[in-house]
Amino acid sequence: MDIFMRAAIEEAELGREEGGIPIGSVLVHEGRIIGRGHNRRVQTGSAVLHGEMDALENAGRLPGRTYRESILYTTLSPCAMCSGAILLYGIPRVVVGENRTFMGEEALLRERGVLVEVLDDQRCIELMRGFIAEKPDLWNEDIGR
Amino acid sequence: MDIFMRAAIEEAELGREEGGIPIGSVLVHEGRIIGRGHNRRVQTGSAVLHGEMDALENAGRLPGRTYRESILYTTLSPCAMCSGAILLYGIPRVVVGENRTFMGEEALLRERGVLVEVLDDQRCIELMRGFIAEKPDLWNEDIGR
Repeated sequence: MDIFMRAAIEEAELGREEGGIPIGSVLVHEGRIIGRGHNRRVQTGSAVLHGEMDALENAGRLPGRTYRESILYTTLSPCAMCSGAILLYGIPRVVVGENRTFMGEEALLRERGVLVEVLDDQRCIELMRGFIAEKPDLWNEDIGR
Repeated sequence: MDIFMRAAIEEAELGREEGGIPIGSVLVHEGRIIGRGHNRRVQTGSAVLHGEMDALENAGRLPGRTYRESILYTTLSPCAMCSGAILLYGIPRVVVGENRTFMGEEALLRERGVLVEVLDDQRCIELMRGFIAEKPDLWNEDIGR
């Protein structure tokens, strides 16, 4: 498997071990991870730190040019908020672990010119299926349902 | 002036006093402010805490129902990220101070059924005009340019 998706999955698994929502993400620039993170709703009571947002936050302040040369890896199809962040910063390519358990704003991203690749990865699917079955209320909260 | 937009402007002014980007926001539920915040790029090195995101973060974890009964006030037209957060949580109404210095994703919000009201407020315009003239590089960084 792609080493960067593997790193995103490691982040998701770390989140699960912490009792959190198992979604992880890494931001990659010139073949190097410059930000990595996972959903922090449970861990810090955050309403905005989805996995992708946490990776962007941990990458710190960057010039616009860096985002426009980067790839975002995420274990789950990015929701409206995370897709919006991708559009704000002009990240041109997003690699998604899976979109079977949740379909985010992939159509909007593609419409705006972002290259979205979906790996349909079994490990990502199982992480989310297990979590949703165990904690459906927490999952609904995370996606505003 | 609307007391909630006044509170959002107070947040923006607080951000300016801290040397930050002068954009503020409040989340209002049943006539009461339940979250307030301002852009934190300078103050905490944040890439995700725009004013609206900071207000949502400071409101803490909320059930989906609360967002769907809330109004978000923001001094500036919400960017793609903040608009995405509004869509994720299903906030039905957004009151915007101004969109002359920056036009966010108002069209997308309206297309998805969000009521967007723009006040064209002179104080909000002057806050942003002064800031952009003084620190254009910081402003460009904040919107991924």
